[in-house]
Amino acid sequence: MQKNKNPSFPGSGLILYGRHPVLAALANPRRRISKLLCTAETAAELKTPAAQRGISPVVVDRKELDRILPRDAVHQGFALYCAPLPDYSVEEICAMADAAGKCHVLILDQVTDPQNIGAIIRSCVAFNTLALIMQDKNSPAETGAMAKASAGTIEHLPVCRVTNLSRTVKQLQEAGFWTVGMDGYADTTIDKMNKAGKTAIIMGSEGKGMRRLVEESCDSTVRLPTSEKVESLNVSTAAAIVLYEMNKE
Amino acid sequence: MQKNKNPSFPGSGLILYGRHPVLAALANPRRRISKLLCTAETAAELKTPAAQRGISPVVVDRKELDRILPRDAVHQGFALYCAPLPDYSVEEICAMADAAGKCHVLILDQVTDPQNIGAIIRSCVAFNTLALIMQDKNSPAETGAMAKASAGTIEHLPVCRVTNLSRTVKQLQEAGFWTVGMDGYADTTIDKMNKAGKTAIIMGSEGKGMRRLVEESCDSTVRLPTSEKVESLNVSTAAAIVLYEMNKE
Repeated sequence: MQKNKNPSFPGSGLILYGRHPVLAALANPRRRISKLLCTAETAAELKTPAAQRGISPVVVDRKELDRILPRDAVHQGFALYCAPLPDYSVEEICAMADAAGKCHVLILDQVTDPQNIGAIIRSCVAFNTLALIMQDKNSPAETGAMAKASAGTIEHLPVCRVTNLSRTVKQLQEAGFWTVGMDGYADTTIDKMNKAGKTAIIMGSEGKGMRRLVEESCDSTVRLPTSEKVESLNVSTAAAIVLYEMNKE
Repeated sequence: MQKNKNPSFPGSGLILYGRHPVLAALANPRRRISKLLCTAETAAELKTPAAQRGISPVVVDRKELDRILPRDAVHQGFALYCAPLPDYSVEEICAMADAAGKCHVLILDQVTDPQNIGAIIRSCVAFNTLALIMQDKNSPAETGAMAKASAGTIEHLPVCRVTNLSRTVKQLQEAGFWTVGMDGYADTTIDKMNKAGKTAIIMGSEGKGMRRLVEESCDSTVRLPTSEKVESLNVSTAAAIVLYEMNKE
């Protein structure tokens, strides 16, 4: 293993950090990696996973990781320079859905916080969501914070970024998806919705909800059955509950 | 309204901040308040709620709020010095449960992050949880960060802090509660559990789960039906899903 006090930046700008995200990325053959950093404490744990990818971890000081990574990043002595995961196309997702039969995808409209998106990715993977679709322009690129909030599960979820969400909703409808928007004012609650076949759930940002055009393109709307004492739930909490419900038999 | 560049600390150490938490605290007659700070921008919105509590907001610079409050606190120009809400006793919660008939309470074992507890409080209020019970020693006192993460819903939820959680579980059993621990290895999933009558849900921290003595005192255990690809869910996400399920008819 080399010692390196000032690792130059060899990649695309993406640095994953934290134990779970880095180990999950090393185990993912779809993840192109360029450089693995660790500390003296974490080197042993990385030896085998690094060898399996044919790379040698570079041992650096903890302070060096602090310097490279965003302020307050809980890196736990793990950092990985790598390429973002390749995006899926809507057509690929439709083909996967045809193969799956009963399945659900999640579409996020205007959700921008990487922490929320990471937490939502974790729930998607927990509840067997086929894919996550976001708008290209209004959603953040993959970041270390997002991968960290996903606890490394970002390696398991097909993600698709599209230019026009309303058009994507129509594409999914033509491919046989039932498209359901989450709306606090809907008449039907999520436990009463039809869960057969292929379903696309569309969620907007906390407070604002979906944009009008996106909402109008949905086949139906549903809401969470919540007390009047709360105006709304955090978007990642609401997503977890609806994905849990979609994952039921 | 007075101008005050250096407000001295008049209370118990608790400062709530942010629009929702401060407005909700002002609207809560159980909340003893001592001093309300605002900026020139937020003064108008606070005029009526402050007058209803018989106090005058003190207008300060935004920078003064930045200085008083924790780093990165999103105060939005609102801060309130006040007393923590009075705790409920187990006996009071049992009496409330008798009056309610079908109801559920949540017990947290070793959950310590104020952000997580605040998010859990918000879900408790959303899903009509009767009360939240935590261990005195291992749970943080009410903080501004907790109230903020609860989006002000902390004003609506009876909270009870106890010395010995295993003893509290027994007390609840004697009062007619069915006590159910969340455990990733349980045979039964939460959607199959009995939801009639009075139920107490017990959750441990993410990763570690409940302590053995607490778990052994439960009548039964249940788990969330999650994919093998995720080791666990964030404790606030898991809590939201089980409380959603408990709130169903």
